[in-house]
Amino acid sequence: MKAIQDLYAAEYAHCFGCGPRNAGGHHLKSYVDGDRTIAHFTAEACYSGGVPNQLYGGMIASLLDCHGTASAAAFLNQQRGRTPELGLPRCVTASLRIDFKRPAPLETQLTITGALQSIDRRKVWVALHLHAGEQLCATGEMLAIELQEPAQS
Amino acid sequence: MKAIQDLYAAEYAHCFGCGPRNAGGHHLKSYVDGDRTIAHFTAEACYSGGVPNQLYGGMIASLLDCHGTASAAAFLNQQRGRTPELGLPRCVTASLRIDFKRPAPLETQLTITGALQSIDRRKVWVALHLHAGEQLCATGEMLAIELQEPAQS
Repeated sequence: MKAIQDLYAAEYAHCFGCGPRNAGGHHLKSYVDGDRTIAHFTAEACYSGGVPNQLYGGMIASLLDCHGTASAAAFLNQQRGRTPELGLPRCVTASLRIDFKRPAPLETQLTITGALQSIDRRKVWVALHLHAGEQLCATGEMLAIELQEPAQS
Repeated sequence: MKAIQDLYAAEYAHCFGCGPRNAGGHHLKSYVDGDRTIAHFTAEACYSGGVPNQLYGGMIASLLDCHGTASAAAFLNQQRGRTPELGLPRCVTASLRIDFKRPAPLETQLTITGALQSIDRRKVWVALHLHAGEQLCATGEMLAIELQEPAQS
């Protein structure tokens, strides 16, 4: 199964956080998994926060942001009954609220999940969770908006 | 005048976003400027978002997050009537809400400001703004919490 980001139109695939065409980026890969979405990411030791051995907040935000817009695109596609092979809409973030529940570790696989809250035409509300194993590290609430003129891949 | 991050205790100075001791990080520098705080940052072209020539959302979040916790530390210090040379408290983010108002450009100086909303013992609420020139690109609302046992620098 292809990652959601690998189905973005070529001109929208350069995101530093998740774009397959950004050579130096983080290349986050998000997948549809039943009625939710899922991504995994392991942060190298250099991405420390202010407290040693804890992932810095900006990376947590990046993971939730990239996974959230990918999730929104997939949920829009599902609602429209389209198969992803025909291309995906591209969503951007209007707002993102992050609650940091406990520190996220470095050099440990993190799991980011997304669940659809609601859709109103081009607006998609997504609930996000970031876990390290069984430990919930952060939650996110996103409002994503579909770009008005999605390009064809 | 020293940057707020340059006054953090050594063991809390490795943040990828703003720690002076993180060799590969972004080294954001925040300053006290009257009753607010201010930082400047210019993002290289590689930090593209999904839409070409626009800064990726994760970096906007990182800038607001690092500047917000630095601002919270400075505001706590001011409230306590301490001079920064004696060391600063270290704050971590409990929650951060970001509203993306318009795209932030790459390779252009961005200005991030922080204003104190309120303080309740170890909790500090900070309002954040990110501008490119006169254009407001993003706003943030942060609840930061002082670490309970701040180390001495």
